[in-house]
Amino acid sequence: MKIKKSKTVRFHEIGNADVLKMETLPISNPKEGEVRIKVEALGINRAEIMLREGQYLEDPVFPSRLGYEASGVVDAVGLDVTSVKIGDIISTIPTFSMVQYGVYGESVIVPENAVAKYPKNLSSIEGTSIWMAYITAYGALVEIGSIQKNDFVLITASSSSVGLASIQIAKAEGAFVIATTRGADKKQFLLDVGADFVIVTDHEDLVEKIAAITNKKGANLIFDPIAGSILESLAEVASKGGMIIEYGALASDTTPFPLFSALEKGLTIRGYTLFEITSDTEKLAKAKEFVFKGLQREELKPEIDRVFPFEKIIEAHQYMESNQQKGKIVVTI
Amino acid sequence: MKIKKSKTVRFHEIGNADVLKMETLPISNPKEGEVRIKVEALGINRAEIMLREGQYLEDPVFPSRLGYEASGVVDAVGLDVTSVKIGDIISTIPTFSMVQYGVYGESVIVPENAVAKYPKNLSSIEGTSIWMAYITAYGALVEIGSIQKNDFVLITASSSSVGLASIQIAKAEGAFVIATTRGADKKQFLLDVGADFVIVTDHEDLVEKIAAITNKKGANLIFDPIAGSILESLAEVASKGGMIIEYGALASDTTPFPLFSALEKGLTIRGYTLFEITSDTEKLAKAKEFVFKGLQREELKPEIDRVFPFEKIIEAHQYMESNQQKGKIVVTI
Repeated sequence: MKIKKSKTVRFHEIGNADVLKMETLPISNPKEGEVRIKVEALGINRAEIMLREGQYLEDPVFPSRLGYEASGVVDAVGLDVTSVKIGDIISTIPTFSMVQYGVYGESVIVPENAVAKYPKNLSSIEGTSIWMAYITAYGALVEIGSIQKNDFVLITASSSSVGLASIQIAKAEGAFVIATTRGADKKQFLLDVGADFVIVTDHEDLVEKIAAITNKKGANLIFDPIAGSILESLAEVASKGGMIIEYGALASDTTPFPLFSALEKGLTIRGYTLFEITSDTEKLAKAKEFVFKGLQREELKPEIDRVFPFEKIIEAHQYMESNQQKGKIVVTI
Repeated sequence: MKIKKSKTVRFHEIGNADVLKMETLPISNPKEGEVRIKVEALGINRAEIMLREGQYLEDPVFPSRLGYEASGVVDAVGLDVTSVKIGDIISTIPTFSMVQYGVYGESVIVPENAVAKYPKNLSSIEGTSIWMAYITAYGALVEIGSIQKNDFVLITASSSSVGLASIQIAKAEGAFVIATTRGADKKQFLLDVGADFVIVTDHEDLVEKIAAITNKKGANLIFDPIAGSILESLAEVASKGGMIIEYGALASDTTPFPLFSALEKGLTIRGYTLFEITSDTEKLAKAKEFVFKGLQREELKPEIDRVFPFEKIIEAHQYMESNQQKGKIVVTI
């Protein structure tokens, strides 16, 4: 049963969650190399909040779409699409510009390489919660960070969906995971997800705790979306030859380069977004296989925090901004 | 003919070049694993100036020795030394703490792994001018930077001995070399040494020039001892996926981490000193072979700027601080 019109979320100006407007737009047909999806669930990401606020890597073009993650059923395919067919149950991988292809809608169109089947043991709510988080974490820890068994891996802001995915992947690879969180309320949750150590940064000293945990050797691999002045501390707790991968800009203060720690310890500090993986056919194929198998084996398991109905999209954004969540925020249609 | 006393340079307080004192000390015997050298020439490095000023990676312990590079003849060996023998003509590789082993002296002792023969086509003045510069450049460009044929490589502060060594190594590896220098007076010299492009930063815009030279693709590999605010510009001119290797702290201002360029382009920014190579037996062996063969083939050729007699050690330091030099400053004994 095809719908002729699609409720779609767009915004016409930079601003807080209230700028999101639910609009009814005609459904269009996929062009060559594109796939149309009848959407069942949407994953909410920090990236969409940043786009809405004019703080993201790309700028909105008004009226701007938004959204990277949807799950649903393929209901039309463009010319030359061979990897999926009508009726396939799939979810989307962020290989595209969300200003152009944003998936906050009942019916959305994405490029063929953004569409992937997810394991049958997952619901559509779980299916929309996997690629962004797990490919981001896989690319950093495995592809770039070459994580090794028994490495000490430090995951900051670890209650986010990427943070949780990172804990699970690091554990699956045999590393010791140190997770940070601001308040004590999320500590037990992070231990339950698999962190070996949790540092509550509002009450504990990061540098002292990591020295104690690692017997002063420091963390081999650090995966951080915060940046700002914390980078100095991260460099201080990094091991000799350690790597710090920055993947966000949550802090509002400027980020100093920790020159003397970097020189003394030969540190690598790396900027990273998952597009480095999703824009490379070979790396993306490896990433998809890694994530798919991990999910099938249930070594990886998406943590769903809360589900909102589509009409409550503004509340879903506000909830993410409140930083209360432990895992993925999903919207169902 | 063995000398019984050794004129040795030490300093007893932090300060300008005048704190360097020429002292006559008794000659001691090498301990197990050590080698004694009758010195013929010394290479002067920025590191010694920084140590004297209390700005170096290690702190002086008074009275402090200094100096990393000497060439001369082995005149005594400690127990279990097997790789060199009395009478060998050698020069030193900085594998050691210069506070402990500093080589500014007529007779000096260093660990066995710091001693290497240099190619016979070099004089003792050239022989003392090779390991610090070429191993530093090799480690960054080849070992860490994985320099490729046709890469655009940007070398800043390129008139230093490490800068010149980097130009030669990058050319030998088939890269296009862009060298920067502050004033126009060193431009022709840098072209003669092998730079494909020279940017005179006092008069030319780094960002515009590199965009023009690389057809907007940016520099694949950047090797910089300056740091400070220039790091923002270096990130701006780096290519997608590019690497910036920082190996010094010549700038006096603080160094910002170029977060948005790093995220957008997936940049790697790396702290580095040659100790990363010299403290690793396997990497050091590869580095020595690379440098030795390059010198034999004359693809690598140390540029000697000026030679001072040992008594003029203070003037040699002052001359380095004047930043007039193009290549190595050497002191002969």
